[in-house]
Parts: sequence; C-alpha cells; structure tokens
Amino acid sequence: MVKVWVLNGPNLNLLGNREPKIYGSGTLEELNEEIVNRGRQLGLAVQCYQSNHEGWLVDKIHAAAGEADCLIINPAAYSHYSIAIRDAVAAIAVPVIEVHLSNIAAREEFRHRSLITPVAAGQISGFGKRSYILALEAAKLMLIGS
Amino acid sequence: MVKVWVLNGPNLNLLGNREPKIYGSGTLEELNEEIVNRGRQLGLAVQCYQSNHEGWLVDKIHAAAGEADCLIINPAAYSHYSIAIRDAVAAIAVPVIEVHLSNIAAREEFRHRSLITPVAAGQISGFGKRSYILALEAAKLMLIGS
Amino acid sequence: MVKVWVLNGPNLNLLGNREPKIYGSGTLEELNEEIVNRGRQLGLAVQCYQSNHEGWLVDKIHAAAGEADCLIINPAAYSHYSIAIRDAVAAIAVPVIEVHLSNIAAREEFRHRSLITPVAAGQISGFGKRSYILALEAAKLMLIGS
Amino acid sequence: MVKVWVLNGPNLNLLGNREPKIYGSGTLEELNEEIVNRGRQLGLAVQCYQSNHEGWLVDKIHAAAGEADCLIINPAAYSHYSIAIRDAVAAIAVPVIEVHLSNIAAREEFRHRSLITPVAAGQISGFGKRSYILALEAAKLMLIGS
Amino acid sequence: MVKVWVLNGPNLNLLGNREPKIYGSGTLEELNEEIVNRGRQLGLAVQCYQSNHEGWLVDKIHAAAGEADCLIINPAAYSHYSIAIRDAVAAIAVPVIEVHLSNIAAREEFRHRSLITPVAAGQISGFGKRSYILALEAAKLMLIGS
Amino acid sequence: MVKVWVLNGPNLNLLGNREPKIYGSGTLEELNEEIVNRGRQLGLAVQCYQSNHEGWLVDKIHAAAGEADCLIINPAAYSHYSIAIRDAVAAIAVPVIEVHLSNIAAREEFRHRSLITPVAAGQISGFGKRSYILALEAAKLMLIGS
Amino acid sequence: MVKVWVLNGPNLNLLGNREPKIYGSGTLEELNEEIVNRGRQLGLAVQCYQSNHEGWLVDKIHAAAGEADCLIINPAAYSHYSIAIRDAVAAIAVPVIEVHLSNIAAREEFRHRSLITPVAAGQISGFGKRSYILALEAAKLMLIGS
Amino acid sequence: MVKVWVLNGPNLNLLGNREPKIYGSGTLEELNEEIVNRGRQLGLAVQCYQSNHEGWLVDKIHAAAGEADCLIINPAAYSHYSIAIRDAVAAIAVPVIEVHLSNIAAREEFRHRSLITPVAAGQISGFGKRSYILALEAAKLMLIGS
Amino acid sequence: MVKVWVLNGPNLNLLGNREPKIYGSGTLEELNEEIVNRGRQLGLAVQCYQSNHEGWLVDKIHAAAGEADCLIINPAAYSHYSIAIRDAVAAIAVPVIEVHLSNIAAREEFRHRSLITPVAAGQISGFGKRSYILALEAAKLMLIGS
Amino acid sequence: MVKVWVLNGPNLNLLGNREPKIYGSGTLEELNEEIVNRGRQLGLAVQCYQSNHEGWLVDKIHAAAGEADCLIINPAAYSHYSIAIRDAVAAIAVPVIEVHLSNIAAREEFRHRSLITPVAAGQISGFGKRSYILALEAAKLMLIGS
Amino acid sequence: MVKVWVLNGPNLNLLGNREPKIYGSGTLEELNEEIVNRGRQLGLAVQCYQSNHEGWLVDKIHAAAGEADCLIINPAAYSHYSIAIRDAVAAIAVPVIEVHLSNIAAREEFRHRSLITPVAAGQISGFGKRSYILALEAAKLMLIGS
Amino acid sequence: MVKVWVLNGPNLNLLGNREPKIYGSGTLEELNEEIVNRGRQLGLAVQCYQSNHEGWLVDKIHAAAGEADCLIINPAAYSHYSIAIRDAVAAIAVPVIEVHLSNIAAREEFRHRSLITPVAAGQISGFGKRSYILALEAAKLMLIGS
Repeated sequence: MVKVWVLNGPNLNLLGNREPKIYGSGTLEELNEEIVNRGRQLGLAVQCYQSNHEGWLVDKIHAAAGEADCLIINPAAYSHYSIAIRDAVAAIAVPVIEVHLSNIAAREEFRHRSLITPVAAGQISGFGKRSYILALEAAKLMLIGS
Repeated sequence: MVKVWVLNGPNLNLLGNREPKIYGSGTLEELNEEIVNRGRQLGLAVQCYQSNHEGWLVDKIHAAAGEADCLIINPAAYSHYSIAIRDAVAAIAVPVIEVHLSNIAAREEFRHRSLITPVAAGQISGFGKRSYILALEAAKLMLIGS
Repeated sequence: MVKVWVLNGPNLNLLGNREPKIYGSGTLEELNEEIVNRGRQLGLAVQCYQSNHEGWLVDKIHAAAGEADCLIINPAAYSHYSIAIRDAVAAIAVPVIEVHLSNIAAREEFRHRSLITPVAAGQISGFGKRSYILALEAAKLMLIGS
Repeated sequence: MVKVWVLNGPNLNLLGNREPKIYGSGTLEELNEEIVNRGRQLGLAVQCYQSNHEGWLVDKIHAAAGEADCLIINPAAYSHYSIAIRDAVAAIAVPVIEVHLSNIAAREEFRHRSLITPVAAGQISGFGKRSYILALEAAKLMLIGS
Repeated sequence: MVKVWVLNGPNLNLLGNREPKIYGSGTLEELNEEIVNRGRQLGLAVQCYQSNHEGWLVDKIHAAAGEADCLIINPAAYSHYSIAIRDAVAAIAVPVIEVHLSNIAAREEFRHRSLITPVAAGQISGFGKRSYILALEAAKLMLIGS
Repeated sequence: MVKVWVLNGPNLNLLGNREPKIYGSGTLEELNEEIVNRGRQLGLAVQCYQSNHEGWLVDKIHAAAGEADCLIINPAAYSHYSIAIRDAVAAIAVPVIEVHLSNIAAREEFRHRSLITPVAAGQISGFGKRSYILALEAAKLMLIGS
Repeated sequence: MVKVWVLNGPNLNLLGNREPKIYGSGTLEELNEEIVNRGRQLGLAVQCYQSNHEGWLVDKIHAAAGEADCLIINPAAYSHYSIAIRDAVAAIAVPVIEVHLSNIAAREEFRHRSLITPVAAGQISGFGKRSYILALEAAKLMLIGS
Repeated sequence: MVKVWVLNGPNLNLLGNREPKIYGSGTLEELNEEIVNRGRQLGLAVQCYQSNHEGWLVDKIHAAAGEADCLIINPAAYSHYSIAIRDAVAAIAVPVIEVHLSNIAAREEFRHRSLITPVAAGQISGFGKRSYILALEAAKLMLIGS
Repeated sequence: MVKVWVLNGPNLNLLGNREPKIYGSGTLEELNEEIVNRGRQLGLAVQCYQSNHEGWLVDKIHAAAGEADCLIINPAAYSHYSIAIRDAVAAIAVPVIEVHLSNIAAREEFRHRSLITPVAAGQISGFGKRSYILALEAAKLMLIGS
Repeated sequence: MVKVWVLNGPNLNLLGNREPKIYGSGTLEELNEEIVNRGRQLGLAVQCYQSNHEGWLVDKIHAAAGEADCLIINPAAYSHYSIAIRDAVAAIAVPVIEVHLSNIAAREEFRHRSLITPVAAGQISGFGKRSYILALEAAKLMLIGS
Repeated sequence: MVKVWVLNGPNLNLLGNREPKIYGSGTLEELNEEIVNRGRQLGLAVQCYQSNHEGWLVDKIHAAAGEADCLIINPAAYSHYSIAIRDAVAAIAVPVIEVHLSNIAAREEFRHRSLITPVAAGQISGFGKRSYILALEAAKLMLIGS
Repeated sequence: MVKVWVLNGPNLNLLGNREPKIYGSGTLEELNEEIVNRGRQLGLAVQCYQSNHEGWLVDKIHAAAGEADCLIINPAAYSHYSIAIRDAVAAIAVPVIEVHLSNIAAREEFRHRSLITPVAAGQISGFGKRSYILALEAAKLMLIGS
C-alpha cells in the first residue's frame, strides 16, 4: 500500500486554540484522524507528525526518503526562512506536496514568499483543512493515477 | 446540478505546442474534455473558456456572477500584472479557485507573485493538468461537501 | 456647445454591486444620468462610456482627439500599469482630467501610483461620485472660465 | 454660515515670484482674495492662512477642530515628509481637502508621494490656482450638498 | 518568397501626430508603404498590422506561427509590462525581431526594460523609422543570407 | 533632588481627543500630573513640556543640558524623520530615555524606525501611559540605583 | 501569587563571558537570582529559563499559556528572523514583554528590526540588565496595578 | 559693498560643546567673528545668523532675496530632509553656497545625501571651519572676480 | 569616402575561443575582414580596433572625433559600468552605434543595462556577428541615405 | 597536541546522496575519516560532528570554547540566516574557519551572503571536499606556523 | 616651497570642446596655466596631470606619496565607480582635495555619489573652473595657514 | 613542472605601507619571495605579477591561457566592479583561485560582493598572507593531488 507522511511545522499543535478565524476550530488530533481516514479511502497509508523544531523536521524529511512514497508538508512559519528545510526537501527523491491552511498571499508581506515552493512538486493553499484532503488526492493522482 | 466555469488565460490555446517540457503535450481541447468528464463524475456541470484578451476575461468573470456556482481560473501571464482581473475576481461573490499548470515559484522572478491569489479562495499549482482535476475536487468539497 | 467625454475603465460597470463600502451603492447608469444633467447645467454636452478592454479605451482616447473638447477618465485598475493608456493620453491635445472614486493613496500599496497622473492636466480623487461632478466643474473652469 | 479655512504651507508666500512657469504669476494676496470671493458666492465663509513653520501649521490644524467646518490645505514641501502634519490632519474630525497647484506626480521623484493624502478626505491637484476653487466646490458639495 | 510580418503595437496608429520630436512626422501608412517596398527589393513579402489591443496582438503572434517566416514587432507600450505578449513570442518557433523607433534607454525609467527582448532573436532601437529597414535587413541576413 | 524633564512632541497636546483606541482617554494635563506625583515618590523632581515645533524641541533639549539630570522624550511623529532632534539628543551628555505610548512596530511601516533610538540610552514603548512611569523607574535605576 | 516566566534566547547562557562591553560582566545565574528577588519584592513569582534551541523556546511559549500570567522574553538573535517564535507569541493569550539588554537600534543593520515586537504587549531595550527589572515593573503595572 | 549672509542650521549653536572630535573646539561666536573679519578683508560685508527652527530658516532665506548678494548656508541636519529649505533656496535668485564642517559622505548613510546641493551654486565640505573661509573666497570669486 | 571606425572592447580578442555557444566560432580577425569587405560594398571605409584597456578606448573615441564620420562600438563588459566611456561617447559629435553580439537582456542581471545606450544614436544586439553588418547598414542609412 | 573540531551543519549527513553534481559522491563518514587522517599528519587531533539542529550547533560552538584550539565549521544552509550561530561564533575566543564545499557565490541569490563570514577568521569555499583539507592547513598555519 | 599636484581624470582633456554649457569654454591647457599662476601667488608649486587611464591615475597617486605635499584630484567619471582610485587615495598620507567642475548632485542619479569623497580631506564642487582655485586656497589654508 | 601564476591587482604594490593593521607589514617583494619558495617545495613553478591597470590584468589573464596551469588572483579593488576581469577569468580554461588578504565580508558594504568569485574555481580569504600559501596548497591538490 502506498505510504504517505504528513508533516506539520511549528505552532500547528495549537490548531483550534490559535486565531480560529484564520485556522478553524478543530484540533490537530481531529484533523489527523480525518486525514488518516480519507487516506485509507483513497488507498493511502498515512502517518502524521508535528514538531516545532526545525532540526527535527529536517531529520524527518531525511527519514521519509527511505520510508514514504510521498511527503505532504505544511512548513508553517519555517516556510518563509528555513533554507535548511528547503535543502532537505530538495535533497530527497520522494515527491513533496506543500500545503497551507490559509491563503498566505493574502496575509502579512513576510508570509508571501515560501522558500519551499520552488523545490516542491506542487502547492495547495487557502482551502483550510481541506487543503490536506486535496493534497491526498494529489498524492493519489501522482502515485496511483486517477 | 452545481455549475462550474473554467476560464483559461493567454497562450493556453497553444497547450501541447508551447514548451511541452513545462506545460505537457496534450492540447487544450483534450484537457477540456477530461475536465468536463471528471466534473460530471463529481456532480459538477463544467463549462470551459479561453481567451487571450484581458477585457474579455474581465467580462466573463462578471458574467460568472450570475451564471456559475464556482469559477476555476488559470490567469496565465495576466496573473502577474492584471489588476483589472484581480478587481473583477474580488468584485464577485462566486468563490474563485486559482490554478497553475507549472510551479510558478520555480520559474522567472517576475512570475513568482500572482496578483490574483490574495483575492482567490485558494490556489493549486505545479501539478500539471492534474491541477485542474484537484480544483474540481476542491470545488466539490466547498460546494457539495466531502 | 462644449463637448466632454467621460470614460470609465474596468469593473466600473459593476458600480453599486461591488464593495459598496468603498464605491457607494448607486449604479453606473444612475451616475451617468447625474453627470449628464449636471453637465447640461454647466453648459457642457457630456457623453459617457465604459469598457473593460484596455485596447478599446486606447481607441476611444484617440477618437476623443477629434470629437471632444475635454476628456474625463477614471482608468480604474489600468491606472496602475497601462502604459498604453498613458501614452494615448499623452498623445492627444485634448486636456484630460483623471478621476478616482476612492482615495487611492489610502488603499493597497500597488494602487498608490497612477501612471496616468503625470500626463493628465489634473487629478481629483477621494470624493466618491462627487469626484465626477468636480471634474465637470474643472472642465468648465478650464474651457469656459469661471 | 459654513466656515472654511484655507491653510498654505512653506514658500507659498512667494507665489508670483517663484518659478512662475510652474506656479503662475499672481500673488498669494490676489489668490486669497479670489478664494474668499468665490467662497462667498458658494455660501462659505473662508479664512486664509500661510506659514513656513511646520509647528505653526500643526497648531493651526488643531485650532481648526473647534473653529472650522472644513479645512483646505496645501501642505507644499511638507506634504512629502511631515508626519507631524499628517498626524494632526488624522487627529481632527473636520474633513480635510488636500490641494496642489502643480501635478506633483509629474515632478521630481521625491514629490510623488504625499503623506497627507491617505488621511485626507480627497485630493485635487494640477489645476493651478483653480485647484483651490474646485476645493471650495468640493467643500460645498460635502457640507451643503449640490 | 520569404514572408515577413510587421506588427505594430498601441498608439503607433498615431504616428506623425504624436510627439513628432520623438517619433518623426510621417504617418503609419507612409511607413508601411516604405517597408513593403524595401522588403520587395530584399526579396521579402511583407505584410503590416497594427492594433491597440493586447489580446489581438497575442492572437496575431500565434497566427504568425503558421503564416510567416519572420516576425518584426514593435510592441510599443506593451514592451514594458505585457507578459502575455512575451509568452506568445516565446511560444512560437518563428524568429522575432524587436524594433523601437526611439532609444528607449534614454527615456523614462519605466521604459528602459523591455520584457520582450529576452525572448526575441535580436533588438534594433533608436534609428527612428530606419529601425524597421534595418530589421528587414536582419530578417534577410537570417533567412536568406547576405 | 534629582531633576528629570519630560518632553512631549507634536499632537500629544491632543491626548484624550485623538484616536483614543490607540492613545487612551486621559488628557495630557492629567498624565503630567500623574507623572509628577510618581516622580516625587521615586525621589525625582519632574517637569513636563510639550510642543508641536521641531525647533522648540531642539532648543529645549539643548537647555536640558544645563538644567536636568535626565531627559525623558516622546518625540512622536518627529521620531521618524527629525535628524535635528537626533543630533540634539546626541549632542548633550544628559542621558535620554525614549518613550512611546503605542507599539510603533505594530503600526504603519513608516513608523517602525525611530531615528532617536540609536542615540538614546534606552527605549520603552507599547505600555500606553505606563511607558512614562516605567521611564521614571528607569531614570531612578540609572541615576540613584535600585 | 502572580506568576511570571522569564525566557532567554540563544547565547545568553554566555552572559558575562561574551562581549562584556555590550552585555555587562555578571553571569546569567547572577542575573536570574536578582530577577527572582526583585520579583518577590513586587509580589511576582518569577521562574527563569534559557535555551539556544528555537523549537524548545516555541514549546516553552506554548507551555506558558497554561502556566504563567505574564511572559518576559529576550529572544536575542531569534528576534530578527524567527517567525516561529513570533507566531507562538501571537498565539497565546498571556501578555508578553520583549526585553533587550542592548539598544538594538544602535547595532548592526540586521538587528534593527525585531519580528517579535509587533505581537508583544510592549518593548524595553537598552538599559542593560535593568531592562529585566523594568519589565518586572511593567508586568506588575499591567497585572496588579500601580 | 557686497553683502553676504551666513546662515547656520540646527545644533550649530552648540559648536565647541558638541562632539569636538568632529566639529572642532571653538564656539559659534568665535567662528562668526573670524568669518566677519575675513569677509572684511575680502571686501564683503558679512552678517551671521543661526536657528534651530526650519520655518525661521525658510523665512530668512526669503528675506535674503532682497537683502543679500550671496547666501552661505550650513543647513546641518535639515540638509537631509527639509524640502521646504530646498524649495526656498531654489525660489530665490541670490546665489547660494552650501557649506559643511565635516565630510558628510564619510558619516552615517542618512547624511550622505543633501537635498540642498542640487539647487545650490556649489558645495564645500570637510574642511572644518575653513569651509566657511573657502565659501567666502568662492563668494568673492563669483561676485567680484579674482 | 565615408569613414567608419569599429571599436571592440575587452575580451573580444578571444572571439572564437571564448564560450562559442554565445559568441560564435570565427576569430576577430575573420570578423574584421568580413566587416571591412562589406563596408567597401556599402561605400564605407572601415577601420577596426580592439583593446582590453578602458583608457585606451576612451582615447580612441576622442580620436574618432577628428578622424571618423561614424563610430560603431561594442563596449563588451565596459557597457555595464564604464561611465568614462559613456562620457567619451557623449562628448563627441560623431554619431555612435552600439552593437552587441549576444542579446544582453537574456543574460545575467548585471548585463541588462548598458550605460552607453542612452548616449548612443541607436543600438543593435542579439544577431551575433550580423549585428556588425546591420550596424554598417545603419551607418550607411544615416550618413549616405538609402 | 593541537585540538581541532570540525562542525557540519544541516543536510551534510546526506553527503554522497544529495545532488552529487554539486557535492561529490563520497559519504560524510568517508570524508570524516580522510579529515582525521590528514589532521594527524599535520599534527592536529581532529574531531568531527554533524547536526541538523541549529540549537545543537550553537551549544557545540559554546562547548568548543573550552575544548578546542580551532573550530572549522560548514554551517551549510544556516550560513544564510542563523544570527544565533553568528553570535555564538563571535562570542568565543577560539579562531573559527568557515568552509563550503561549493562556490556559494555561483549558486542561488539567497546563498550568496554568509552571515558567519564577517565574524570568522577566514573563509575557504568552492574546492569540494578539499576545502576541509585546506582548512586544516590553515589551522596548522595559524596555530603551529608553517 | 610647498608642492601641490593637480590630477585630472577621464575626458577632462576635452575641456572646452565637451558640453560647454556644463564645463565652460576654456581648454585644459588654459586652465592649467591659470592654476599654476595662482598657485605661485599663494606660495604653492603646482604641477598638473591628466589621464583617461584608471591604472595610470592609481600609479600617479602612489607617486604623489613621495613627491607632493597635497593632491588636488578631479576623478571625473571614475569618481562614481573606481574603488581602485579610492583605495589609492586612502593608502597615501598626503592630504587629498576632491574637486568637481559641475554640481554632481544636480546631474544624473548615477553621478550623485562619489566613492572618493569619504576618503578625501574635503570636497569642493559646482564652481566651474573656480573650484580648482578654491582648492588651491584650501591647500594653502591646510598646509601654510591663513 | 607545474606552472602557477600569481596575479595581484591595484594598490597591492603598496603592501607594507598601506593600512598595515589590515594588510600586514611585509612588502610585496618579500611576499613574492615567500610564495615562490613555498611553491618550489610543493613542486610548483610560480611567477608573480602585479599591476594597477585593469586592461593589463585582462591581457595577462588571456596570456595565462597558454602559459600557466593554474592562476591565483587577488583582484583587490577590481573584485567588486570589473566585469572585464570576470569575463577574462570565465573565458579561459585554466583553473583560477581567488585570494584575499582580508575578510572582505567584514569590511565596507561595497566590498562584500566579488564579481570574480562566481567564475572562479574557489575562494580563500581572510588569512592575511597565508591566503596565498593556502592557494598554493589548493593548486597542488587540484593539479597534482594530495
């Protein structure tokens, strides 16, 4: 069965508590459950991770190289300055899909540019938690076909 | 039945001829057909349009206000400078999903910023023609539910 | 009798529907009627046009050269990037008055600069629909005198 | 009777002597007289002031808060760097109309941006001394109606 | 016989009327006639077009792909912001020669950069109407040889 | 007894009237009284001044050199462009504490940088009127010790 | 009793060793002791932490949400690029006071801007170790009152 | 006898007290005396003024128009942002010589550009108090000849 | 007979050795011969020079003033920073045609701007060695006529 | 015996797998072995570390202060944004040599600047794995002499 | 007798021919003669040099170190980009006075900054040929006294 | 025997006289001698050159193409603006090692970027005269092996 990792960056553990007007009200646990279920329907074995540590995320991206067929990542704040994460994404052969809950282009100037996008396979942003569901669909289209 | 319009901007009529390494080899007609079929499977009545004329695209976005439940737009070159199209998108209540074949963040500097994104509901880019399929899924998730 | 053309740019056909907090609630037809009436009181024969097409606006500005004594233009979104409209305005001998409903200096950064202003006779902005009435007064002052 | 203050900034006392090609040849006294007369015809009691002192202008704007129904201001050179005048204009409830003799967008780069415009009700520029007459009309439209 | 299209952008229909100090005094019709004659001497069948409409120009560049052996284009104002025209030029296999009447590097800052140049075969600018004659020579050198 | 001067810049005389959401509702007189009282408790003889005039503020900073042991200054709008005030602060040996009511880093771009800060002993901002009280504490810590 | 956390960022563990001209000569342990004592006098139960790890600091800020009534933070080098810490500060309801030993505006260009300031309650900088004492006073003023 | 005014801007009244390493140790009174004496030797009747008030300096420059044959000005801090003083200098027919004690190009970035220089006849900087003596020589050369 | 000088800048002596993909494979000697021959056919007496020394090129441009009727120059690397060559070109009355082998707008950012173009009569670039032939044609059109 | 630490930053653990065209094909283990051996020949006791964690690297740099005579560091991605690492390097007295495998000036714009270089003793870049060998030579020259 | 060298940079050999509106009509020989004569009156033995070669100017500045007591230099175009000349000026102990005929701040943007000024003793510009006479006076004041 | 050329740029002939705090106290002759000796030990036949002339350096780089196996260059001031030297370095097949005495990243802003680095094989900077010794080691490693 096709394996997909979902990797969430800093502050996403606060989902549901933090600025619900932007990020919605469900918790990360609820979101993870929904993602895993939906993945199962699409034929994808999904595992979800979260960390506030840049180095931990780099380590995990490296680990994905041997463990996963596709990596879905929401680098959150690190999107905008972590060249280390960018280099990790560029270094592995596994296709990476970048995801954002909010429409980052409609927020503060310093969030407009993601350093990860140029080395990702594709980007999906602005659909709230549905961004993850669409990323699963994208993974399926790329790995299994329509 | 839920109505979706797909609107393609300048030079997309050349699809299949133009830089196939970036844009793929199928023609726009073939792509449109695939989009309409997939839409039907998802319960969406899709109509596809293309124009190289900025004013025509603005007119059509206005028309969508009374005719469609969702607008999927690939503004192509106009993404990067057409404030007129941005204003048209912002002026209508219909949700708009922005789509790009290529990963615009990985191309020339002047293609990195899309003026449309901040006023769109969400953006999907970099998945080639599958970007449109994912946009249909997104439309379905937003209008009908999962 | 002195002839004045009023030329409205993209999305102004939506007047009354679009962001009424910024643009007010009357329609373009109602505005045009008010403009024509007020013109008549001031001794000005006014004709009103609108288009979302940059090329059509350029053509019309050229046509004004032989047909009108003064041109009042609200270039809307095109103010900020249409060098073609700027060149057309600069090319004709007819005096051109630039008009904006809103105070463009108080909106998004990319609306602060109008390319048209440096080649217009004068600019009036921020008075809502009264901006057009003041432009008629300006036309009268310039062409007929106080 | 509706009270309007006209406030002129630095170097405008030289009107008629300074660069007549840009600013015209009449003196400030003559202009003030014309403004007061025209105001009377429109039902406006106008008083005119000029100072080269930034602090004096700030004081006067504060004073306008209790004394005038509308303030017409030509901040001249201070337009481009006086955040103090900007703050004063923003602090009072009286509507403020910004006026410029010349088309500042067509002059040196450092004159293109006015710090006052974003906090003014509206701006009129480029009509020479007629800019003041149009500002009176604008004041009348806003305070009395057409 | 080798076929060459000459495509003129916005406001060039005013040639002879508009700023003769910069653009010279003959009309576009006279220029076209001279171009066609000179082309005939060089063994080139030339056809001349002009439009103020960006979309029309894009359509015409597409059409050139099947109809002409070489395209000479003066994109005028669109040189500086039309990514749509740039993409059209880049999309066709026909060699494109960019032409400017004036020396754009010696004019306003915003005219210094042409978006078309990086995707054109070559550029000729600053020789007035002779720029077109030189472009014909260039076409001959490239297509027929010296 | 240790002498402290508190110097307030432009528009602070409007305190209580101007944008109470940002600046609070008490007047400057009330604030001054509170500052003087609190100073007395801390063993500081405080005198308060306010002016909208840049030159007057420069003169007063010079005067502080011989009269005060510490200068607390809220340069308000002048913070962002008055090199004259900066030079005056840098020229005197008396330690200067910069104070802001609001968090200037969270407001408009042009308020983010204060020219005074690099030559001040320290800066306290964002605590509303309590910023002044904290500045008194800082003055006491520096001049008398904890 | 009111609980305050003091959180120190990277390299502050070297206090006393590192560039004593800028940072003073006491160690972090001595500073912590002084802070705790002074807090006790003010009725504040203070706990002090330090880490060189960005992720650890983010975790700790999250933890503060349920444990502390006020957070005093010196983000040190992270002030200038850690959007992750900024987001963490913005995400919690606990008021955050930013502190700097040195006057960051008087040091290298890249230290002038703190990303944390716009989301902090207030900022105190440039008073050396007294900056922490003033932050305790500020915490007391905000939480207990004067 | 030829009349020369010497006008000194903000903080120059502190000469001798302020940063003697940059500005030297004599007072402004001593400098003025030396200037007047040297002027007398050169056949120039010199009068010296100083003010910290921008508006006062503008007024004085206007007054120079009818009273002096040459104006020597050290605008000090105002050099770098006072468009009002620049406009005053540009507005009068009297030749203006700009003087600086220090080499402003070798100091902080924000002191590198003087707004006054482009409208002055010439500039002399970096020779300490001798800059004024050289300006007198320049005045003599321009007005009387060598 | 009309005299034309062709002046080649730094590294062009390596023609044929250096990056043949960009500059072609013939040597400078072969190119010079072709240029001289073609000139003779057009009625132009051509002389060719090359130097890597900026000062030598300036000297030669000065010399052209009395010796040549037209100067064709490929300033190569110096195009982008030699204000000395720009000033030399601007100082002489002889018309100067700027030539580039490659399309400089399609290369590195720092090669996009030529300081020479604004003071040249016209520019021809991107046609490889044919750029020189076209420059000869341009010289003939300007000096002899078609 | 002289002690040298070699510290490698993020993604260098992938050496041999990641973009071999840029970084070469041997693994980090092989490189470390070569470094240690070469160090022994030069009289240097070398220890090698690698981490993807910024905080861990900061901790290790602090530890080097008491343990090593020289620190050779390849900060990789962190070179370009980690002010924390820069501050750590600047804080210790041990001389630090910065090393890069690739020529960072020849890669993406955002890799051109290293924040570490200004506080390092020297920099060696672009020689592939030989950069480390040269750094050992440099360490020997500095600590032992030639 | 005190020895002064006057060093003129590129294109100044054209003095009298080149743009006389900016540079005056006398030749360099006439200017040199006048400078030498005036120097003699002031007790200065003056020698004048000119070159278009940057390297020659650097060599000459080095030579001045052992031969002259003061160097007056007009670096002309090289002022704006020759770091080599700047370094040469900074490297010698002889005081250097920078001179410009025209007011460089009133010309093109790229002439506003001189790289030489920060390392020169002082600068004199805008007085035409009298700038050199004033520089001689300055040399005398510095080396001999008034 | 392997041949290495060492090429020194402008002002390096002053070594030992110029700013010894930055560049050390030995002369260039002494340095050259040391380099030649060390080269001999490493099996390299070294020849050393110096010039202040940009064109001479370009000529010499060209000559190296047929004469040397490796080129070590310290372009000094030319590093920062000489595109001519960059192009020369890029044009030859001989590997080029860039060397700097000082750590250019720790000096003035305009010295931070070297135009030569992107086309050099590698760069060594900041080790004083030892930078040259290390460059010899690098040459040996590249040409002969370890």
